[in-house]
Amino acid sequence: LKTLAVAIDVMGGDHGTVVTLPAAMEALKKHSNLFLYLVGISDQIEPFVSLLPEELQERCKRVAATQVVEMDEVPTVALRTKKASSMRLALELVKSGEAQACVSAGNTGALMVMGRYVLKMLPGVDRPAIMYALPCDDDNGLPSKVRVLDLGANVDCDPEHLHQFAVMGSAFSKAVDNLANPRVALLNIGSEVMKGNETVKRAGELLSQQQGLNYIGYVEGTQMYRGAADVVVCDGFVGNIALKASEGVARLILDSLKREFNRNFYTKLIGFLAKPMFKKLKQRLDPNEHNGGTLLGLNGVLIKSHGGAQIPGFVCAIEEAMRVAEQQVPALISKDLEKLLYEE
Amino acid sequence: LKTLAVAIDVMGGDHGTVVTLPAAMEALKKHSNLFLYLVGISDQIEPFVSLLPEELQERCKRVAATQVVEMDEVPTVALRTKKASSMRLALELVKSGEAQACVSAGNTGALMVMGRYVLKMLPGVDRPAIMYALPCDDDNGLPSKVRVLDLGANVDCDPEHLHQFAVMGSAFSKAVDNLANPRVALLNIGSEVMKGNETVKRAGELLSQQQGLNYIGYVEGTQMYRGAADVVVCDGFVGNIALKASEGVARLILDSLKREFNRNFYTKLIGFLAKPMFKKLKQRLDPNEHNGGTLLGLNGVLIKSHGGAQIPGFVCAIEEAMRVAEQQVPALISKDLEKLLYEE
Repeated sequence: LKTLAVAIDVMGGDHGTVVTLPAAMEALKKHSNLFLYLVGISDQIEPFVSLLPEELQERCKRVAATQVVEMDEVPTVALRTKKASSMRLALELVKSGEAQACVSAGNTGALMVMGRYVLKMLPGVDRPAIMYALPCDDDNGLPSKVRVLDLGANVDCDPEHLHQFAVMGSAFSKAVDNLANPRVALLNIGSEVMKGNETVKRAGELLSQQQGLNYIGYVEGTQMYRGAADVVVCDGFVGNIALKASEGVARLILDSLKREFNRNFYTKLIGFLAKPMFKKLKQRLDPNEHNGGTLLGLNGVLIKSHGGAQIPGFVCAIEEAMRVAEQQVPALISKDLEKLLYEE
Repeated sequence: LKTLAVAIDVMGGDHGTVVTLPAAMEALKKHSNLFLYLVGISDQIEPFVSLLPEELQERCKRVAATQVVEMDEVPTVALRTKKASSMRLALELVKSGEAQACVSAGNTGALMVMGRYVLKMLPGVDRPAIMYALPCDDDNGLPSKVRVLDLGANVDCDPEHLHQFAVMGSAFSKAVDNLANPRVALLNIGSEVMKGNETVKRAGELLSQQQGLNYIGYVEGTQMYRGAADVVVCDGFVGNIALKASEGVARLILDSLKREFNRNFYTKLIGFLAKPMFKKLKQRLDPNEHNGGTLLGLNGVLIKSHGGAQIPGFVCAIEEAMRVAEQQVPALISKDLEKLLYEE
């Protein structure tokens, strides 16, 4: 197995080093071909790393940062003023080629802006997009997943941007999900009045003329969760709203059930017996279980962990970074973009 | 109690008269002040109505239509060619003042276009909007509801349209939900990169300058389901996507649980014991329970039932029509629009 070097912004996320460092150690233990750059404030990394067994210590390198990008910092301000931040230095390690990927649970906007500035865009990509895997049921009702992009990077998109997102998502899915011919769809509304807004309609036209892409047409939000497509494309505003509405309903349902099962002794007892059945569901819905969004379109691998991720979630994100780096996804995207969009 | 006359398009919906006629009878039994126009193909209405007790027969009038608007018909074609349809005749009854409201489970687009053509828009309204009530938890974790518009009538909206939707939704909520000062919010994305697209940002500016409206700012999809606002405003594309994504997740969760509880004899037994706890949840999520969307902005009361609604759901829609007609919502909206938008 070839060694993979991943740079970790250990300061990012709601929990910072309390989550990122134990997760880093966990990942090192699980993957003998993993090498980590732990980028952050020395005082916070040192005590932890010094306790590690020597074998693991040898497979990680501390990189001292003197600044931290705050979770609510304005992205452009962070770009200008936080040149010695853990986020920035982690990205620079990818830029220089020392690391093959960067993982951060930090401020999404800042990560986006800095990632774009440091790593640059792939040729032919106008804008990067954020892609996550969401849980769904496949045609046979079995648990599966669907890749959705953009989930918040671009709030106003042209049809051409959606076209590029489709090509990028497809290339990613081929490489990382091992699908020969991923089904790509546009997220759209149903039969109400007219189908879709102008942007989506024009993107649909572009995609149906696109050779070499398995474009299957429109899907609705309901179908998205039923495995109707492998890659679902939408603009960042719509995608983010759909994602947050989904989270809202999921929480509403779980809270409702909790209330019902907490009514009295009898219902609590049944709730206790039903616990194993709920556990599976909670795992499926837990963002930790499928943690690790990708910022697609950059000339380098950049994985965004959920800010609130716990240790297993952050390990997931590191593993996603390994997969994406191993498959050299940016190069594949670049090749597909060139072949599909700019050759005739 | 003043008599309320409601015109029912008995042909609309996935199930047609099999649902609409029994529901109509049910509603007549429940509300002694209700009078119904049953608009549809005579052959299908006659046998049913002739079986009703005389007391109920006296409170409904059959109106013969010779055409039916199909569920998948192109709205503008329906408008042009279906002048003798049940949908059209039901709307004409509202126009003429014979009925105070119209209820249909038919083709949403056609209903929209015909409603607009027959009833006309309220002065000062550029576009009608579809509003539904969605379930949510209030601040204390108790079941409540939130009115959301637009859910699919307008796929491309200007900030001015969203402004009008906010005023209409607020007037509706005051009258029908009995809220003195409904909290109105714009649906927006979270802290990812930048807050919102240009349309939402500008609508936010308009609304924060608006006197006499309790505008509370942006809400995310997650907060929408936590009772953060009484009225949530968005464009029809975004609203419809959020709604369908919510439905998709809800179904994913329920299917997941069903699978877990169906695993073996033991889990089935626990599932049987847990049934009452699930019943409450299913009721909350069942579109039948809060059935009846309103097409706001028309000069007349037009209620859209879910196409797949069952009998209790269609009764709900008739009852919503009664409430909206009783409160004379179109007149209230008109007054508020004039006062808020066009006076200084």
